[in-house]
Amino acid sequence: MSVIYNRVALIGLGLIASSMFWAMKRKGLAGEITGYARSAETRDTARRIGLCDRVCDTANEAVQDADLVVLCVPVGVMGSVVAGIADDLKPGATLSDVGSVKRDVIDNVSPHLPDHVHFIPGHPIAGTEHSGPEAGFAELFDNRWLLLVPVEGSDPKAVAQLRALWEGMGSNVEEMEADHHDLVLAVTSHAPHLIAYTMVGVADDLRRVTDSEVIKYSAAGFRDFTRIAASDPTMWRDVFLTNKDATLEILGRFTEELFALQRAIRTGDGEHLHDYFTRTRAIRRGIIEAGQDTDAPDFGRGKASS
Amino acid sequence: MSVIYNRVALIGLGLIASSMFWAMKRKGLAGEITGYARSAETRDTARRIGLCDRVCDTANEAVQDADLVVLCVPVGVMGSVVAGIADDLKPGATLSDVGSVKRDVIDNVSPHLPDHVHFIPGHPIAGTEHSGPEAGFAELFDNRWLLLVPVEGSDPKAVAQLRALWEGMGSNVEEMEADHHDLVLAVTSHAPHLIAYTMVGVADDLRRVTDSEVIKYSAAGFRDFTRIAASDPTMWRDVFLTNKDATLEILGRFTEELFALQRAIRTGDGEHLHDYFTRTRAIRRGIIEAGQDTDAPDFGRGKASS
Repeated sequence: MSVIYNRVALIGLGLIASSMFWAMKRKGLAGEITGYARSAETRDTARRIGLCDRVCDTANEAVQDADLVVLCVPVGVMGSVVAGIADDLKPGATLSDVGSVKRDVIDNVSPHLPDHVHFIPGHPIAGTEHSGPEAGFAELFDNRWLLLVPVEGSDPKAVAQLRALWEGMGSNVEEMEADHHDLVLAVTSHAPHLIAYTMVGVADDLRRVTDSEVIKYSAAGFRDFTRIAASDPTMWRDVFLTNKDATLEILGRFTEELFALQRAIRTGDGEHLHDYFTRTRAIRRGIIEAGQDTDAPDFGRGKASS
Repeated sequence: MSVIYNRVALIGLGLIASSMFWAMKRKGLAGEITGYARSAETRDTARRIGLCDRVCDTANEAVQDADLVVLCVPVGVMGSVVAGIADDLKPGATLSDVGSVKRDVIDNVSPHLPDHVHFIPGHPIAGTEHSGPEAGFAELFDNRWLLLVPVEGSDPKAVAQLRALWEGMGSNVEEMEADHHDLVLAVTSHAPHLIAYTMVGVADDLRRVTDSEVIKYSAAGFRDFTRIAASDPTMWRDVFLTNKDATLEILGRFTEELFALQRAIRTGDGEHLHDYFTRTRAIRRGIIEAGQDTDAPDFGRGKASS
């Protein structure tokens, strides 16, 4: 594949940025890729493992002459990061991000944007519970969705170029409106994460069941919650604080439904439970058919114990 | 490995029984293995795929002369199944089960037990979201826990023999008291399952987000919930109805904790959220160290797409 951007700058060098670097290198999608991280330790790690062609000590230096700048920092600091680099952005450059929340990012970034820059927010629906510059790998985005959330007046040519980059990194790209994005993600990601964090916290708190028992018998279902609940604390704090309304709405619906099921258990209403559990099975079938998970009976874990 | 029981009878031929059959065959742990399922269709399937040395049309026939009888039926029917076979159990035989709840099974099975039979309840902490006679595989119990819950006056020799069988099938065996078992499983399995079922139901119900959106973007966290929520509806209905008190207690604690986190989101208390999320990460580390999951960055899914 040919070069799509001559120079790309990655601001923030965690799981997503490092995976983007390796995914771009895999196909030669970018000329030079610069990187910046706030912490000197992260910058040292990046230099040591060859993450980025050039690691810069300031964000301003990293974005110099960049045709594409991607903000890979927690949602809560997007606005202040852009305020700091706005004057250094090249005329005609595209500015994007990978935040899990879009309305808040748009509201906080837009006021700082120079007129000569194309702002095209994005969100890769991909991740693991690992974080940091060493967590990335080139295949993270393969066959995963990338949502582009163009703001009003986005240049179609700039959008098409960014779309080509993500497709080159393995993603399937769709466009979505910001508020709808935030609601969809509240359902598919933000509420499930908060629920998983909560359940893991409850298990840890319970005095009559030891931590070692919880850990030993986690294969009974709890294990899937702990994987979700091991995700980066700073990133998730920001997600909940910036997608507050949609998350709280979904959690409200969740609690309502949970109370109905609890009542069915208390009153011994087996039919209600059976009907409910039968209905939820169908969604799982849809996900397997959509290719977003494997149907292997051991969830693929047996083959991955490397 | 040598034969541990000359004749084993499996009552109910779903995921667990079929995995037991293949696991026993793998190491030659049993002489003849008979099987019975209530539905003629399941019995036909079992005969077609070679599941069990002999598939019987009645449970009474299957347990004739069996040294070990394992009840692999939903928890809610354990008592009535034992009432139906009690007169056919061989003197000195061991009766066990694989139910996810232990106090209720003991209370319902014990009244029907002849004096000359050893009753030793058991629970393999292993499973997938698949069910039925074709779902089983020999490796299901490898490096997974098997909890034995001997009742008062259990014969130590009979317990040791059953332990040897499960170890031969790949399990790590521990003994646990029935009520404690039910509480531990409420935390590690029953409450997480109900929560996952609830979240999947909410997503399905939501009018403003389409099912196809939920399915497409499931990789964002929701996917792990759908896996849990695809488990067998009859089995899980019975689990919740028979481990009612412990499940409701844990769900009560869960709701309390969830409300505290919702309040932190609403009031913008980022420190509370960050502290909570940092604490839950440690549990995940423990599970990986305990060998109950893989640390592969893509959760092993990339390698399993067969």
